[in-house]
Amino acid sequence: MDTKQNILQTGAEIIHLKGYHATGLQEILNAAKVPKGSFYNYFKSKEDFGLQVIDHFSEFFSNLCETVLKDATRSPLERLEHLLDQFMAVFDAKQYTCGCPVGNMAQEMGDTNPAFQEKLSSAIDIMVNYYSYIITEAQDQGEVAQDLDAKETAYFIVASWHGALIRMKVAKSQAPLKNHKHFIFNHILKS
Amino acid sequence: MDTKQNILQTGAEIIHLKGYHATGLQEILNAAKVPKGSFYNYFKSKEDFGLQVIDHFSEFFSNLCETVLKDATRSPLERLEHLLDQFMAVFDAKQYTCGCPVGNMAQEMGDTNPAFQEKLSSAIDIMVNYYSYIITEAQDQGEVAQDLDAKETAYFIVASWHGALIRMKVAKSQAPLKNHKHFIFNHILKS
Repeated sequence: MDTKQNILQTGAEIIHLKGYHATGLQEILNAAKVPKGSFYNYFKSKEDFGLQVIDHFSEFFSNLCETVLKDATRSPLERLEHLLDQFMAVFDAKQYTCGCPVGNMAQEMGDTNPAFQEKLSSAIDIMVNYYSYIITEAQDQGEVAQDLDAKETAYFIVASWHGALIRMKVAKSQAPLKNHKHFIFNHILKS
Repeated sequence: MDTKQNILQTGAEIIHLKGYHATGLQEILNAAKVPKGSFYNYFKSKEDFGLQVIDHFSEFFSNLCETVLKDATRSPLERLEHLLDQFMAVFDAKQYTCGCPVGNMAQEMGDTNPAFQEKLSSAIDIMVNYYSYIITEAQDQGEVAQDLDAKETAYFIVASWHGALIRMKVAKSQAPLKNHKHFIFNHILKS
């Protein structure tokens, strides 16, 4: 991994756990084992870094979706279920901490920093576009009713997921994520 | 209003906007116009204060629900719709800032402070119990299908609402809240 990717990856992990404001620049530099001068070769400021961290999270999400949601060996709804199961396994391993980094930063920064607000709105739209794609595929294959608006449904699924992750963090259990999955698959995405 | 209520009310408003960590004790004292010694007559620490702020939010929510959700002049689903409309009017007035204080603090404190984690889990359960109550009423009056689990449905509605508020903060529009209302009333709560 090159130095810039190392700083982004290391900083993203700390921000995911602690949030943007609670993460200090020195803490990132110590964890990534790079000197401050090196950081400023790649990032203009902590804010510039934070904005690039959001792109880093979006790339991770997009890469996962490109693999899981375009796997033609499964039906569209099976692919979506597989994606949710993969995320649920991640949160089992993390003992129900962290949540969605984009949701977290939207909540933390949405009211106070216009550059973050705009970037995070776009990051949510990236998620929504993948969900919208798979819902449309499911509609084309008869797994989901035609009269559902794919994009609005995608927004609803992302919101329900973000809210389920909020409760996961205080319930410290998988139950909120299973509840999300139950209602999305049994009440929303049906033929 | 007595001094303790004044401190709680003033601090709650600042925490609602900025979050718990970003709100300084001195900022609360200045806004409430009380000296530090007075604060410590009522609260052991900032943490003790924060925990009582959560109870303060729960009381506000409960009082609103007692009025709106128990208004026998409307049907159960009309009461629930009226509650959502009232919250949407609040966020219109706040220009789509702040979000739910309990959801915000759950996200901010759920991983790092066990006392907050427990208190916030209870605060979400207070909301869930009101939604569960009104769903059961709606089932009794034939507005909602009997086979829906009222409590699990209530958890799902609270999660979807919390996630909608996250997107509201970056979209800076009412659209995410309208999307929540559409799916809850047209796809979940139906006979």
